Amino acid sequence: MTYCVGMALESGIIFASDSRTNAGVDHISTFRKMFMFEKPKERVFVLLTAGNLAMTQAILHHLRYQINQTDNPQAPSGESLFTASTMFEAASLVGKTVRHVHNLEADALRKHGIESHMSLLFGGQIKGEQPRLYHIYNAGNFIEATPETPYFQIGESKYGKPILDRVVNYKTTMEDATKCALISFDSTIKSNISVSMPIDLLCYEKDSLSIAKYRRIVATDPYFSTLRQGWSDGLREVFAHMPNLDWS
Amino acid sequence: MTYCVGMALESGIIFASDSRTNAGVDHISTFRKMFMFEKPKERVFVLLTAGNLAMTQAILHHLRYQINQTDNPQAPSGESLFTASTMFEAASLVGKTVRHVHNLEADALRKHGIESHMSLLFGGQIKGEQPRLYHIYNAGNFIEATPETPYFQIGESKYGKPILDRVVNYKTTMEDATKCALISFDSTIKSNISVSMPIDLLCYEKDSLSIAKYRRIVATDPYFSTLRQGWSDGLREVFAHMPNLDWS
Repeated sequence: MTYCVGMALESGIIFASDSRTNAGVDHISTFRKMFMFEKPKERVFVLLTAGNLAMTQAILHHLRYQINQTDNPQAPSGESLFTASTMFEAASLVGKTVRHVHNLEADALRKHGIESHMSLLFGGQIKGEQPRLYHIYNAGNFIEATPETPYFQIGESKYGKPILDRVVNYKTTMEDATKCALISFDSTIKSNISVSMPIDLLCYEKDSLSIAKYRRIVATDPYFSTLRQGWSDGLREVFAHMPNLDWS
Repeated sequence: MTYCVGMALESGIIFASDSRTNAGVDHISTFRKMFMFEKPKERVFVLLTAGNLAMTQAILHHLRYQINQTDNPQAPSGESLFTASTMFEAASLVGKTVRHVHNLEADALRKHGIESHMSLLFGGQIKGEQPRLYHIYNAGNFIEATPETPYFQIGESKYGKPILDRVVNYKTTMEDATKCALISFDSTIKSNISVSMPIDLLCYEKDSLSIAKYRRIVATDPYFSTLRQGWSDGLREVFAHMPNLDWS
């Protein structure tokens, strides 16, 4: 499985993804699920992927191939994330690529009884526009995060949702949202073996048009260890102070 | 949907269930999912139900009908929860009843594309035996909780699992387990609209062979309000004290 979160806040967008993949319980691997596309000072995109790994890797291949084609100074051709003039256009292109990969792969997979499900978070900013975050579904359609519903999750989303629901809103600072994302991952990893470290974490600051804050957090990361221990101890402390039910 | 928890601890068993049912989003109702069977000083059983409501109600009907038959002083007949000589035998009888209801109903439901899934928690104590808690699956088979894995959940289990994983073990007191169960329900109810109040809560104390602690907790319950507010405030307080990530 997978767990990814994206939060579109007043000050920018937080992205976080785990890196465990599994085909059954006896084929467990580590694969990156966060991908960046950057033209400094002009545009930044981040893509988080969940679902069939062969298909999400194929999507990456196509998106990069398109960029190579349009970036070719000799003979630029077609459309790519680097030619899209709006975030909506860029998200549409990712959705179109999802549909393209489905057309190429889904029938063959179905014959082998293999699921061809994908789910993507795609966000970033193009100069002149606000930062935007989209949840792109398996059918290639997508929705955008808004101030009322600023965060999206894909993959094993339920374990880590309660803490997001309690803490995150549009006005939440990037520092708090980063902490909250990591606590949400900690809760998920504790309760579900199909989500695991390392965590890729990226904080895109509005109007920076560059990726300045990216960290791969491994299991032994001192900050993450402090955070998870502090959170665990803090919860126990709060719990110990809650009153008992009077049954009478 | 549904959320139910059972915890088999050193001092007894905690049972908790929500009471929301829904068929689609426009047919939402309140139905009890906790059922007791008691022969004071001799045996106590508690059944928590999730899944197809017509089928779980049919199971209840059959279990009660069996008891009426074997309790008939004129002509006792057959087997029932009140004739089972061990908890294993009682759980087997519930499993057998699950299979019986499937045999009666599943084919007809399938023709209408209706899911015939059920999941049950069944626990209690028969005099001379230890208290036991079982998770009875849709196929009528079942597993028993043990000191290493003392709790079971059915229904919308993921939102409320992290807090159980952090707090509950076999040695947890009944008071703490009760609090933890309610906090687990609070987290679930906050994040999932298909789980809702009132909560039925029952604390069976080992060797009591009677049901002395049962409460139906409604949305306005003062204790539950205090607990959820205290928990929410406490989490925010702990969160505010967690250190920020240093990106450098």
